[in-house]
Amino acid sequence: MKIQQRIRVEFDYKIYFTHDLFNPENIILKEILKNKQSKVLIFLDSGVASSWPDIEYRINAWFDAHPLCARITSSAILLDGGEQCKNDFQSYKEIAYALRMCKLDRHSYVIIIGGGAVLDTVGFIASISQRGIRHIRIPTTVLSQNDSGVGVKNGINFFGVKNYFGTYTPPYAVINDFDFLKTLDIRDWLSGISEAFKVAIIKDRSFLEYLVSSAKDLAGQNIEVMETLIMRCVRLHTDHIITGNDPFENGSSRPLDFGHWSGHYLEIVTDFELRHGEAVAIGIVLDMTIARNRGLVTEDEYDLVYRGLRDCGFTLWHSALEKRNSGEYLCVYYGLEEFRQHLGGKLTLIMPDHLGHSCQINSISYKEIEQAVYEVKNHFYEIGKW
Amino acid sequence: MKIQQRIRVEFDYKIYFTHDLFNPENIILKEILKNKQSKVLIFLDSGVASSWPDIEYRINAWFDAHPLCARITSSAILLDGGEQCKNDFQSYKEIAYALRMCKLDRHSYVIIIGGGAVLDTVGFIASISQRGIRHIRIPTTVLSQNDSGVGVKNGINFFGVKNYFGTYTPPYAVINDFDFLKTLDIRDWLSGISEAFKVAIIKDRSFLEYLVSSAKDLAGQNIEVMETLIMRCVRLHTDHIITGNDPFENGSSRPLDFGHWSGHYLEIVTDFELRHGEAVAIGIVLDMTIARNRGLVTEDEYDLVYRGLRDCGFTLWHSALEKRNSGEYLCVYYGLEEFRQHLGGKLTLIMPDHLGHSCQINSISYKEIEQAVYEVKNHFYEIGKW
Repeated sequence: MKIQQRIRVEFDYKIYFTHDLFNPENIILKEILKNKQSKVLIFLDSGVASSWPDIEYRINAWFDAHPLCARITSSAILLDGGEQCKNDFQSYKEIAYALRMCKLDRHSYVIIIGGGAVLDTVGFIASISQRGIRHIRIPTTVLSQNDSGVGVKNGINFFGVKNYFGTYTPPYAVINDFDFLKTLDIRDWLSGISEAFKVAIIKDRSFLEYLVSSAKDLAGQNIEVMETLIMRCVRLHTDHIITGNDPFENGSSRPLDFGHWSGHYLEIVTDFELRHGEAVAIGIVLDMTIARNRGLVTEDEYDLVYRGLRDCGFTLWHSALEKRNSGEYLCVYYGLEEFRQHLGGKLTLIMPDHLGHSCQINSISYKEIEQAVYEVKNHFYEIGKW
Repeated sequence: MKIQQRIRVEFDYKIYFTHDLFNPENIILKEILKNKQSKVLIFLDSGVASSWPDIEYRINAWFDAHPLCARITSSAILLDGGEQCKNDFQSYKEIAYALRMCKLDRHSYVIIIGGGAVLDTVGFIASISQRGIRHIRIPTTVLSQNDSGVGVKNGINFFGVKNYFGTYTPPYAVINDFDFLKTLDIRDWLSGISEAFKVAIIKDRSFLEYLVSSAKDLAGQNIEVMETLIMRCVRLHTDHIITGNDPFENGSSRPLDFGHWSGHYLEIVTDFELRHGEAVAIGIVLDMTIARNRGLVTEDEYDLVYRGLRDCGFTLWHSALEKRNSGEYLCVYYGLEEFRQHLGGKLTLIMPDHLGHSCQINSISYKEIEQAVYEVKNHFYEIGKW
């Protein structure tokens, strides 16, 4: 005898775009935080705190001006951002301890203000505490505003593996306050742009053309162009999560992971000296080279992407790509194997099928990768000579 | 500007009822484990391993007889069961390490054979590894077969709080093999029966009458009666998860937690000397007393439940119930506060509205609790005098 159990769960959340979130006249938080009996605990990226020294004062003033909202239960907990945050066992414990000490329950709110690593780490601990304390994300970098912060994943690193522990837990709300982008250094500014290229290449040619034509503005940290980039990018991501029909990724495919298999490898092998977006930019060029060699994109399409990324200011080569193991094989090839394991079993890679569309492939041969690495290096140094 | 994101996720899993699961002619596992390229790692409750010394040999023989199924990747990992398993940081790490060492991915299967604590602990670690490795539960106790093992929750204890860390992660499949019940000691046998009373009291009067009329058979460890109890109980639970419309418990209510607020308290204050089911039996009597005093159930209905639990063999009193703090207040009252926090914010308790139906109440006064504790004690000692 057997019983068939079928459970449907629905998650709703809003992604807001705004300026000056903690101005008392800004009522986005009021729309989100309803019950004044609920508790709020704020986690703050220390990088944000030093760029915006009055932020905690302003947050408190906002809550003072809105006494009918959920209330702050303690001073903000500061956390150092960057990938190190996701590796640090001590920080996991501190986050969990803060949630417990402040007696947060399943009707409380954790507000996380920071870059992707802080959002990921606190989001993960919140998602497993009391089987899930609601978390509101306030991403402060380009990458977290246009990509990681608006999705449903979180995670911490363990056993040296990126995001080894993690859950699929939609946020309670996401608020993108563009003002935070004004204090980013150029690397953090750039880092999110490669994800915009990635999603444009496989989903939206006109967006890609916009990116390429705006590349020099982006390099010059033009905030209006960046706001457009983020809004279009978020729209593509959220549409994808819905239409992809596999929000918790039970299938074998990761339809948004173009350029990522070698990108992940580059991050790890450089010990995160390369940021995620910098590594993904190189990963995109490697995959575009493979796609061109297979006839999936034309030479002109390849050039368009290459020029766009270069004009934004990305360095489109890293010597770690030609690192070889003792058997003289390129190490990046093993990144493909790690990625296959990460997906589970079968390798499924997304590739452009001309710009703006995509297809899936299930293998890349070692020879193809070696050839592409050689070409990426040559292309980089040839252009350098111009 | 804002974007509304709405995500729907569907989980499907089967709950099987069987005998002699690892007989090569039993094809339930074959129906579940499809692809021979997938890996299987087995976690085994050490109590089950000592009651069934040839179990691992039989599991291996089953897999040898079915070479087209997913394959076993290592010898079974043994874990000591009981609540201690959920408190032990070392065991969490060992479980995670085993998953990593065996290179399990999101298309692998973790099979967990054991009581509720082992199912909970391994299920939790699997649910956060690689953002969720599929787990198949093979519950071996009454409590896990009829209640905890068929639901969507898992968890470990932390900060001295039961299930402080946990997730809502539906299993990939559940297999109830009734043969495992034959070697249970009387306490483990009894422990699951109180959950059957609980769900019958608030949902199904005819099931309750069946339980009361079968109480002496249950006390005598009659396996056929127990099989009926488990199947009816699972059906009530699974129907509830679907019709309750809140499988991941985002609301304030726990419609199946009748008798549990004081039950949880009793488990903790006796340092788990009382098993969950033993504590819940007393919790049910306490709540039934409060319900009778409020006129929610009649004296006859109260007697029916009391007689049924007593005839099954439960001890319906524990002196921890009358423990007082230095201010002379009954400590069990604070259990209500802990439960409120656990639910988040608002207290919502389920009570019978006559047998077989339920209602919600939002408070119990200290005086009501004190009166009920006094009556439960008296009732217990009066009956003892008969």
